[in-house]
Amino acid sequence: MKKKIKKVNAAILIIGNEILSGRTQDKNIIFITNWLNLKCGISVNEVRIIPDAEKVIIENILHLSKKFKYVFTTGGIGPTHDDITAQSISKAFKLKYEYHKEAYAILEKYYGKKKFNDGRKKMAKMPRSAKLIYNPSSAAPGFITKNVLSLPGVPSILNSMIENCKIYLTKGDKVHSKTLNLYTVESNISKSLGEIQKKYKKNVEIGSYPFFRLGKIGVAIVTRSVFLTKLKKVNNELLKLSKIKKIKILKI
Amino acid sequence: MKKKIKKVNAAILIIGNEILSGRTQDKNIIFITNWLNLKCGISVNEVRIIPDAEKVIIENILHLSKKFKYVFTTGGIGPTHDDITAQSISKAFKLKYEYHKEAYAILEKYYGKKKFNDGRKKMAKMPRSAKLIYNPSSAAPGFITKNVLSLPGVPSILNSMIENCKIYLTKGDKVHSKTLNLYTVESNISKSLGEIQKKYKKNVEIGSYPFFRLGKIGVAIVTRSVFLTKLKKVNNELLKLSKIKKIKILKI
Repeated sequence: MKKKIKKVNAAILIIGNEILSGRTQDKNIIFITNWLNLKCGISVNEVRIIPDAEKVIIENILHLSKKFKYVFTTGGIGPTHDDITAQSISKAFKLKYEYHKEAYAILEKYYGKKKFNDGRKKMAKMPRSAKLIYNPSSAAPGFITKNVLSLPGVPSILNSMIENCKIYLTKGDKVHSKTLNLYTVESNISKSLGEIQKKYKKNVEIGSYPFFRLGKIGVAIVTRSVFLTKLKKVNNELLKLSKIKKIKILKI
Repeated sequence: MKKKIKKVNAAILIIGNEILSGRTQDKNIIFITNWLNLKCGISVNEVRIIPDAEKVIIENILHLSKKFKYVFTTGGIGPTHDDITAQSISKAFKLKYEYHKEAYAILEKYYGKKKFNDGRKKMAKMPRSAKLIYNPSSAAPGFITKNVLSLPGVPSILNSMIENCKIYLTKGDKVHSKTLNLYTVESNISKSLGEIQKKYKKNVEIGSYPFFRLGKIGVAIVTRSVFLTKLKKVNNELLKLSKIKKIKILKI
């Protein structure tokens, strides 16, 4: 009997001029994709990086939230004028942009009544009916609006919050992955690799990535599948291929 | 007399399952955006990361090439089955996918007639009428089709080729940038910062980014503008603000 596979996908929307201007190296994409893959069996199918511009945010939220099961946004939920993620999502979904009672209480407690100024209060404003994603490192919560989860842009804070997204996510089947590092060049194996991919095109995805290590060139063959048995079959074929072609395997 | 500003924009399309799966940390986005900013006065307005899937590549090429002056693609121009950028761009623009004579000659010379196998020949196949972007490190050229410039995914090779894109690009006015690192928290300055941004909203973009350094927290205020004089004015206002608020400035 065939196992029914549960595929769950997501998109990431990075909101921030600092990434588009080349000032900051993004570190959130790789963190979120790995976490979703490994912990939730969710595959990221698209990433977009856009500026802090309301119209652009609205367009992308509407498009991606329709197309994918979940959308993760990063950035734009702080206290300054360029933090416009919450109000943009409110506009996108035609929801009132207002204080979230619990978020307000959390922030008021964290800063103390006296130091709870307008900038800090802004971080409690969210689209109506949003639910909180708790923040164990700096109090200001993220939030989920429909299928859109909004997280901060600072990687250390985002990382500390990610586990609190789990309660809002439906898990999918985990995609298993195996890497075989071969001391060869891509063109030496491209034909055979294409044939193997064709044979297993329904169930296994084969990627080929050149590398340079310790002065030697090689190719990393990455296979990915929800079916462990198919993955093993493909890897056996790859091992056979490297034997025939007398290709050394790099063990790491 | 007002100076007429020449704004030139671009998008980056990262093609590669290895980025979406979380296997590989992208390094090309920050490199290309910085190079375009500093060397060409071109601003990157959007980045997308998509899988090695023909339909998705075609959709994105058509959308982005209409919307932006230039599109830079990275990845998918090697010899293996998962390298489908060239044929996808051909389909997108309804151009024949065929051997580029000069690219063929370059690769044949580089590998030698005997070692010029089918995988390597594939790297000479491009959309009809594409022009070459020469590759000083590993011969296989990139190419430009209409306003779409296609580069490889391996960062070291991409970096070595980027200067060869210049002949195809119209330069824009350079966006100048200044960073002021303040030992404060965002909410302490968010109100004043918003007022300054409002005053200069036409000409200067102000970004606010928290940082943690040497155990202290601070905020980097990044100002960007094509007008150096306006940039200086805004920075003077920021200095005045930090004096009033008794905020220490981190000199680096």
